[in-house]
Amino acid sequence: MELCKILHMNSGDGDKSYAKNSLLQQKATSKVWPIIKEAIEDYLCTENIPITTLSIADLGCSFGPNTLSILSDLIKQFHKTILLHHNKPIQYQIFFNDLPSNDFDSLFRSLSNFLEDLKNQIGTDFGTCFFNGVPGSFYGRLFPNKSLHFVHSSYALHWLSQVPEGMEMINKGNIFIDRTSPKNVIEGYYKQFQKDFSLFLKCRGEEIVSGGRMVVTLIGRTNESPPKEDFCYTFTLLNLAIYNMVKEGIIREGKVDRFNIPTFMPSPKEVKTEVLKEGSFIINRVEVAGIDWNAYNDEFDESNVLVDSSYCYAKCIRSVIEPLMITHFGEAVVEELFHRNAFKDEAD
Amino acid sequence: MELCKILHMNSGDGDKSYAKNSLLQQKATSKVWPIIKEAIEDYLCTENIPITTLSIADLGCSFGPNTLSILSDLIKQFHKTILLHHNKPIQYQIFFNDLPSNDFDSLFRSLSNFLEDLKNQIGTDFGTCFFNGVPGSFYGRLFPNKSLHFVHSSYALHWLSQVPEGMEMINKGNIFIDRTSPKNVIEGYYKQFQKDFSLFLKCRGEEIVSGGRMVVTLIGRTNESPPKEDFCYTFTLLNLAIYNMVKEGIIREGKVDRFNIPTFMPSPKEVKTEVLKEGSFIINRVEVAGIDWNAYNDEFDESNVLVDSSYCYAKCIRSVIEPLMITHFGEAVVEELFHRNAFKDEAD
Repeated sequence: MELCKILHMNSGDGDKSYAKNSLLQQKATSKVWPIIKEAIEDYLCTENIPITTLSIADLGCSFGPNTLSILSDLIKQFHKTILLHHNKPIQYQIFFNDLPSNDFDSLFRSLSNFLEDLKNQIGTDFGTCFFNGVPGSFYGRLFPNKSLHFVHSSYALHWLSQVPEGMEMINKGNIFIDRTSPKNVIEGYYKQFQKDFSLFLKCRGEEIVSGGRMVVTLIGRTNESPPKEDFCYTFTLLNLAIYNMVKEGIIREGKVDRFNIPTFMPSPKEVKTEVLKEGSFIINRVEVAGIDWNAYNDEFDESNVLVDSSYCYAKCIRSVIEPLMITHFGEAVVEELFHRNAFKDEAD
Repeated sequence: MELCKILHMNSGDGDKSYAKNSLLQQKATSKVWPIIKEAIEDYLCTENIPITTLSIADLGCSFGPNTLSILSDLIKQFHKTILLHHNKPIQYQIFFNDLPSNDFDSLFRSLSNFLEDLKNQIGTDFGTCFFNGVPGSFYGRLFPNKSLHFVHSSYALHWLSQVPEGMEMINKGNIFIDRTSPKNVIEGYYKQFQKDFSLFLKCRGEEIVSGGRMVVTLIGRTNESPPKEDFCYTFTLLNLAIYNMVKEGIIREGKVDRFNIPTFMPSPKEVKTEVLKEGSFIINRVEVAGIDWNAYNDEFDESNVLVDSSYCYAKCIRSVIEPLMITHFGEAVVEELFHRNAFKDEAD
């Protein structure tokens, strides 16, 4: 089945939902905020055009508290800066993009309260806001030529358009790049990232007006070590939990070998290289930030990671990849997997 | 509760769904098609502007086979006419609008197959198509100034923004304008229609580019007789069925008195008057067409109406107003109402 038909965060607002387990993404957004603010100010000061309608797109918006809180911050910042430089309120056309399997209905039903709150916060001189949902993959064109002024994407671009071809059976015992992954697995994932990210840049380059801005946040590696050394600890825990379930005969080994998660975490250099090679964008800033996955810790503390983060890991990762795993392993196995003491047994 | 939060057609594709019971709307669309075709050709011939992106909005699109079949016809007609006059394919930005309670998720998930079919039918010289969902009431602004080229709305504008104020308790024994409705009920409904329709025209007038076109189809009266004489037979059947349930003690009388369906069926003159008074639009054509509600009859035959249409009446009306009625009467009562031999007992 095509990835774009099944990939989505857990919907609704229950205990397992993305909406209830996206504090990590919220932390990331607050770290990125100074960069977003700078991009907005820079755009509105530099581009001396008479703006009547600002088109803003959030790519891979999902649906959760972050979807609306980042939008609220964006609009407030635009409003503040516009009043400073242009002196009159404008119209905002907001485009929420995600795959068609996203929970757009819940998002749409929350917009009327959101707008009311926003108007109360900003005051009477606030312009008009028009909301649009745009279903489709951002690894393809989503908007007409030169129709967007500002593009934002958070925690979405580490998802590839597909599992790299040929990964089946060669990444044995792993569901992602891990310490034991062979070289051709890493190469396969990297090539897919290059192809996807470059296409993403090309499409956005065609859609964004000249001088427009884009701020992208993704899960990446902190340095230039090969992916298997700076691996994602969460997936290692998941690999371990699955490995134990294979040993206990709950999951067949071949089933694990055929499953690979379609994400790649690029290094800062790998990101820069693609942007320069593709050529549509000029890089203003590339920044790396560490984030503590434990929802209760506000500051990143490496010594805490193994001690008390396993529960948060499990809940966060579940809300993100459960639909994908259920399609492959079935609901019962995935339920069991995420109930295994939230990976604690495996992490100890 | 606000009407815009509960009004929607029955979702999904089950036996009671709007998707499975919208043949009537399909018949209406095919009757209107020559007018739509003329409007498209007229627009593209008269307006000699270099179009790169055509913005088309379907207001009150709902979700069912008609949503996509009318869009398919629209795009094919635009494509044909554009190739004739402009000689190169263009980009289409399609906006699906309905209230936030609409089944947008199902609509979005059907778009990828729809686009594939369309491309197969049109061929390789077809332009690009960008889809957007726009949640909100069309009795308010939905789009930026001068951003739409063509607006279509079918079977939506007879819905008012709300039940006219003060209708509670004065339209006794009826849930809509019927033979026994007092004069002030008819006046109240008409005033609400004037207010709503005029606001609709004002908003669209601001959103549509100069020279753009709009084609609206709604359920109306065939002539200038007062609404209670040229009443809607379906609602009379519904009134009768409810009246019998009150007599049997299944529904309390006061509950019926407090429920009124927020629709008004204007006469051709009432429509024209508002358009002229509001002033944003020039009328090209106002047409009246009779449609046989019996799904199995292709041609309108008045003598058939009472004989074999009751089943179709019930199913069609159910798919449209059930969510609204359930909110007021509860699920059990509405289930019973629509199971009463599809109104047959009452119609005999």
